[in-house]
Amino acid sequence: MRNPLFREMKPTMNNVDLSAYLSAKRLLINGAIDDILGETSDSIRIVAAMKHSLMAGGKRLRPILCISAAEAVGGQIDDVMNAACAIEMIHTYSLIHDDLPAMDNDHLRRGKPTCHVAFDEPTAMLAGDALLTLAFEILSSLEVNDESNALKWLTVIHTIATAAGHKGMIEGQMRDMNAEGGHLLSLSDLEAMHALKTGALIKASITTGAILGGGASDQIEQLKIFANNIGLAFQVTDDILNVEGDPDIMGKGVGTDHARQKSTYPSILGIEKSKQFAKKLVNNALQALDYFDKKSDPLRAVAHYVITRKR
Amino acid sequence: MRNPLFREMKPTMNNVDLSAYLSAKRLLINGAIDDILGETSDSIRIVAAMKHSLMAGGKRLRPILCISAAEAVGGQIDDVMNAACAIEMIHTYSLIHDDLPAMDNDHLRRGKPTCHVAFDEPTAMLAGDALLTLAFEILSSLEVNDESNALKWLTVIHTIATAAGHKGMIEGQMRDMNAEGGHLLSLSDLEAMHALKTGALIKASITTGAILGGGASDQIEQLKIFANNIGLAFQVTDDILNVEGDPDIMGKGVGTDHARQKSTYPSILGIEKSKQFAKKLVNNALQALDYFDKKSDPLRAVAHYVITRKR
Repeated sequence: MRNPLFREMKPTMNNVDLSAYLSAKRLLINGAIDDILGETSDSIRIVAAMKHSLMAGGKRLRPILCISAAEAVGGQIDDVMNAACAIEMIHTYSLIHDDLPAMDNDHLRRGKPTCHVAFDEPTAMLAGDALLTLAFEILSSLEVNDESNALKWLTVIHTIATAAGHKGMIEGQMRDMNAEGGHLLSLSDLEAMHALKTGALIKASITTGAILGGGASDQIEQLKIFANNIGLAFQVTDDILNVEGDPDIMGKGVGTDHARQKSTYPSILGIEKSKQFAKKLVNNALQALDYFDKKSDPLRAVAHYVITRKR
Repeated sequence: MRNPLFREMKPTMNNVDLSAYLSAKRLLINGAIDDILGETSDSIRIVAAMKHSLMAGGKRLRPILCISAAEAVGGQIDDVMNAACAIEMIHTYSLIHDDLPAMDNDHLRRGKPTCHVAFDEPTAMLAGDALLTLAFEILSSLEVNDESNALKWLTVIHTIATAAGHKGMIEGQMRDMNAEGGHLLSLSDLEAMHALKTGALIKASITTGAILGGGASDQIEQLKIFANNIGLAFQVTDDILNVEGDPDIMGKGVGTDHARQKSTYPSILGIEKSKQFAKKLVNNALQALDYFDKKSDPLRAVAHYVITRKR
């Protein structure tokens, strides 16, 4: 039975202390990423550039969603940590390339100089390339005798690569570039663009968490509905934060969408309707979790976080 | 027993008609690449940019080596075609990014405008990203019920990702950039740089061909020795062609290394000693094939091609 209280926006949901949960998971993820790159010395410039962006204090939303989805279907963190780290690497590579002078020419990201500012343009481009490549190195680093899991990991690699590639995230970025400079999008074009640009990788995070956590196919289908709604809610919230967020908390400038004449939810719907839309999407997401047991409480809490976050 | 004639540089080696062999393999590879990207319409700009560079008439050396290595251990072309195409995509992405204004700022590649000239800089960067990502989508596109091969493909993904990443090709590119502008390298630094920049992916092409072709571990070890020598011979020949190649045949400018004050084999050893060195490397490579049967004749012929090619 659906409990309407589940869908209220409060800091603690179903006894999950959201803030503690997020902190604990971030610590684990940062530790795992550090283990992967820690072997290699910082004196190697390409590794220093990769670490600069990867350890710049990101929210770790995608790896957290990956872990929470695994937990929701009864899996363990160890089952998915490599996938969670790989997805964060892919997300970070996309930010490094987006920030380059040829793209957005952003100087600040997460309150720190962007990669090409801290290093140089060729190094930043190669650091992005290297993070994307490392993601697949990590995803394929199965123990050589673990034949039983090999097919599962191949499915995960395929899911992530498809989401990150020219039929997913990259096509979204192409459409986003095309939509700057006053070429206004319809609401449905905007939604389609975001489904590709941010939605596809968020969905892959949740799907791969569920696959590696051992989820049944009907569970995975429900989690895809959850993911579609959460992915869009994330983007609507991003648009809202770009209007009324606090630059000090966000670690980057606000008002940049308006300056670039970008089509956004606030520019099309207005700020209040955008907030209502984000809430509606999160409610839709939570509905998709109705038939999961309490192991999905962290995932519910993260859904809540997606639209209440300040950065 | 070693037959010194094997190592002579002649157009037909052991009854393999090199030119016909290369043409036939290129046709197959181009067909397979076209099948992969053909599904998607050219009207999608990112796909058009990917195709522009991927179908610009490359030599297809890496996929051919992958196929020849599979044949040498008794495998079939179908076993390796996906890997061969994926490797060519990774090679092409690296060229697109190298050609960008922030890197080499090259306008001509294989006789055609480079990707950022034909399209624009952001599109070229994303087309490179998309080709790298597509490579891993292809490598993981196993039939979902083929559990027996899954572990083999994971090994292949790991081999290719490691070779292409920050411990391989990308680190080589970092060192190459660092070596421009009169900062001269020693011969051993030059060799180490090339082993990373071009050698690693060439070695991965041959190794993955042998793995997917069903090679035994001692065969794979011999092919790695072959690969190390052929990879370096390829680069020495590239350096020589940059001095005395025909720009019309090569489809790109010559003398550019000298203009950029790059350390090359001709600049360190002189042109004649460089040619001798390339021949010695190919002989070393052929020696590593001594205990293979005649199924490795195409691989011998391709070794020959590496240093006799005109582009």
